Amino acid sequence: MRSEVRTIAWRGGVVEILDQRKLPRAVRYLRLKTARQVAKAIRDMAIRGAPAIGVAAAMGLALTAYRSKTKSREKLLERLRESYMVLRASRPTAVNLFWALDRVMRVAESSRAAEEARRRVVEEALRIMEEDIEANKRMGEYGARLIEDGDGILTHCNAGALATAGYGTALGVIRAAHAQGKRIRVYACETRPRLQGAKLTVWELMQDGIPVKLITDNMAAFLMQRGEVSKVIVGADRIIAKTGHVINKIGTLSHAIAAKYYGIPFLVAAPTSTIDFESRVEEV
Amino acid sequence: MRSEVRTIAWRGGVVEILDQRKLPRAVRYLRLKTARQVAKAIRDMAIRGAPAIGVAAAMGLALTAYRSKTKSREKLLERLRESYMVLRASRPTAVNLFWALDRVMRVAESSRAAEEARRRVVEEALRIMEEDIEANKRMGEYGARLIEDGDGILTHCNAGALATAGYGTALGVIRAAHAQGKRIRVYACETRPRLQGAKLTVWELMQDGIPVKLITDNMAAFLMQRGEVSKVIVGADRIIAKTGHVINKIGTLSHAIAAKYYGIPFLVAAPTSTIDFESRVEEV
Repeated sequence: MRSEVRTIAWRGGVVEILDQRKLPRAVRYLRLKTARQVAKAIRDMAIRGAPAIGVAAAMGLALTAYRSKTKSREKLLERLRESYMVLRASRPTAVNLFWALDRVMRVAESSRAAEEARRRVVEEALRIMEEDIEANKRMGEYGARLIEDGDGILTHCNAGALATAGYGTALGVIRAAHAQGKRIRVYACETRPRLQGAKLTVWELMQDGIPVKLITDNMAAFLMQRGEVSKVIVGADRIIAKTGHVINKIGTLSHAIAAKYYGIPFLVAAPTSTIDFESRVEEV
Repeated sequence: MRSEVRTIAWRGGVVEILDQRKLPRAVRYLRLKTARQVAKAIRDMAIRGAPAIGVAAAMGLALTAYRSKTKSREKLLERLRESYMVLRASRPTAVNLFWALDRVMRVAESSRAAEEARRRVVEEALRIMEEDIEANKRMGEYGARLIEDGDGILTHCNAGALATAGYGTALGVIRAAHAQGKRIRVYACETRPRLQGAKLTVWELMQDGIPVKLITDNMAAFLMQRGEVSKVIVGADRIIAKTGHVINKIGTLSHAIAAKYYGIPFLVAAPTSTIDFESRVEEV
């Protein structure tokens, strides 16, 4: 299945990351060997999208564990905590990143010996990756029930396989609907200023043969007025549990207001790791 | 006054047009000697904006009249009708273009001799230009009454001196408010896909020392939510008299819907020549 664009892979001590800055012109992979290199890849936008960043950060800790030769549990934990700080600082807005790092650190700290910690940290990072893909497929399945044959679907930014470990959140829903044989057409907003929609979303959908039209962000309301858009689906950087606020790429608000104005359903597809149970929206 | 950016000028048989494709990097003028060259400048986007196109088209007819050596009224009218058709085809969406061409042709046809027609056609074209600048200054004066000290004003595309013969429609209002000493800040939307806001509006406002921030189109709703925008002002390509519909650059609709949602006044500044008394919106 072509939809299996792999964003991140673990190859026995090396993390491979599809370099999104080269897309759509070239499909190139970065081979990362240290947590510091992973942090740099996150900072430099080689990897993007809240869930993908979470998985990559977990892999960063896995690299530290896998490559450390120490026999001392304390020394290993010390190294992991250093990597934790470096990775945490790489993208301060992504709640998934903190969630993934904390989850891996808990496993490390509950291990009784260096060897056990090493093995379990790697396993946990791989589990986070597999769970992400699994969650996306499940989300796609659930979400696709809301998609009807003939729908014109607007999406913003990239919430696809590239923004996750694979399959995608908003694009996962689109993929699942397409796989079920529903005839849909997608309008991908170019997503100024960084053009993730133009560079990533369109590329991804074309890999899968899903009909897609690239539009400038400011065309969305016009297409809604014309009746060309019957659903809007986006991902989320963060969802504030206390109030239900969705934090997402600039431009999402415009689409939400226009969709409300024209009575068009607006769907947000995100894994539970995107939910922020602590913050209030004013703090974000 | 620096706000006197001249878009079009008549220099005894040569029409000078500020080449907007070079802005903001270079200030270059095209020297046009025939109606066909004017039509090409319109088609190639060297000159833009509904009122400016109207003035340029009138100047195109003036060139034909001025440069024709014939002593026969009929032959001159024949030449003018040829130019009329060429100019009319250069931008089928601009109602000002038809309005200006028809106005000049009426003058030509009501003249009794070639020499009289020649003189009056040139005078009429110059009058259209002067009236445009005068109308913009008047509009600026009226519109500025609606602008308050401290306003944050959002504008889209270019509705400035460059879109007119001078001073501007929406930017005319901003210029007048600024000249009156009101402290205002302007948010100029870059206006995808052709970036007229980024290239033209920001350049114009900087010439006048009016505080301006360039934003991507999709940031507008966010700034409204934050209370940064207290007025929206745009120009118009066409206003349908029968229903009040405003036809304008892609993206205007998004801003209008968001402004309505946040209860922010939305102003359209345009001369009467932009009003279409004939068409219904479905036909446009």
